Amino acid sequence: MPTDAQQACFEAGIKFGSLYHQFAGTPVSPANTRSLERAMAESIENQPFCESVTVTIHDDRVREAIDHGNGYTELTGSLMDVTMRIVHEDVTVRTRMELEDGYPLMRLVTVES
Amino acid sequence: MPTDAQQACFEAGIKFGSLYHQFAGTPVSPANTRSLERAMAESIENQPFCESVTVTIHDDRVREAIDHGNGYTELTGSLMDVTMRIVHEDVTVRTRMELEDGYPLMRLVTVES
Amino acid sequence: MPTDAQQACFEAGIKFGSLYHQFAGTPVSPANTRSLERAMAESIENQPFCESVTVTIHDDRVREAIDHGNGYTELTGSLMDVTMRIVHEDVTVRTRMELEDGYPLMRLVTVES
Amino acid sequence: MPTDAQQACFEAGIKFGSLYHQFAGTPVSPANTRSLERAMAESIENQPFCESVTVTIHDDRVREAIDHGNGYTELTGSLMDVTMRIVHEDVTVRTRMELEDGYPLMRLVTVES
Repeated sequence: MPTDAQQACFEAGIKFGSLYHQFAGTPVSPANTRSLERAMAESIENQPFCESVTVTIHDDRVREAIDHGNGYTELTGSLMDVTMRIVHEDVTVRTRMELEDGYPLMRLVTVES
Repeated sequence: MPTDAQQACFEAGIKFGSLYHQFAGTPVSPANTRSLERAMAESIENQPFCESVTVTIHDDRVREAIDHGNGYTELTGSLMDVTMRIVHEDVTVRTRMELEDGYPLMRLVTVES
Repeated sequence: MPTDAQQACFEAGIKFGSLYHQFAGTPVSPANTRSLERAMAESIENQPFCESVTVTIHDDRVREAIDHGNGYTELTGSLMDVTMRIVHEDVTVRTRMELEDGYPLMRLVTVES
Repeated sequence: MPTDAQQACFEAGIKFGSLYHQFAGTPVSPANTRSLERAMAESIENQPFCESVTVTIHDDRVREAIDHGNGYTELTGSLMDVTMRIVHEDVTVRTRMELEDGYPLMRLVTVES
């Protein structure tokens, strides 16, 4: 039977996959980064065992990505950093998504009882 | 060749389909209705010819839809009303999504030059 | 009151926005281009007034986009061409999405009664 | 530092969240259940450490959910069962999503070295 720590890590993964695939593709420009960050964090915090989510969309990266003259781009992992804290039973899991060699990577940071 | 009014109606439809399928499925509870409304409106307003978007997620309908004990539900058309104003060349199109016989319907309201 | 042709163009736009924002972000590699094309076309053909949809995901563009070592990329408009035929009342609308100056553009092609 | 088993469970969760939030909301009727099942499985199998995915969309539940006269509904967790096998280092994780008391639940089934 899976341990509490394994369950907590599974739950942490669910939240990351959910956040990413729900919001990837959303139209974004410097005009809506703040409202999008907040909506992403607050919607995922509804999910079970999800204590807190922070989303930082980098305005400078958004500006760089806007190159086709329409004034906006689509949200992808390379434009943002995300951190989450998941608590399941007595286990706390911290996770992070950030750029590594130019590619957004979702990582388990710590798993603590 | 399509007329300006037809183009404007096509653009209006794109925005509606975009908003709906980008955000349907987002976890929602009374705790995040306001931030989700704002993020939806502001992200779609980035799209070309889209002058304004209003999104109203009905807290009472969200509460009714939360019946599985997890404290949240997934966003669907029946939980919200949406209005948009699209301006293309000298044509203004107003659209609306609202419940009709219990089913959310996207409608052209007016097309004016 | 909107004309039948304007309604048909609005419906055509809805289908385009739906297809794009439902499927943008889907993991894609040369291993799943065919099944994804088919699922995209068949799901949107369910929508009202949508007579036919064709989706072509370009394997060569997918291969070029896979540059981060994980063996897949995320679906975006620049990897595919889409055509649709919408019939509403006695109006037939043909639409197309294709690259124009490197940016995917959704266009009304013809509106015929 | 997280163990291999915890990493594998995190990866398993990511796949589940991805599958769910990428495809929830897709228009579905008995006409496109097979192509949608296949596209969902094959797209998620692109993700790292994901050995196999099976998706079963229940035609009878889809038919029941189609009640608004448009001939289709939107994909939600209650219409399908999903199983996945994730292999990370020497750990194999099996997961399943199925209805429990009418609500779709994502579960870790086994974690084996």
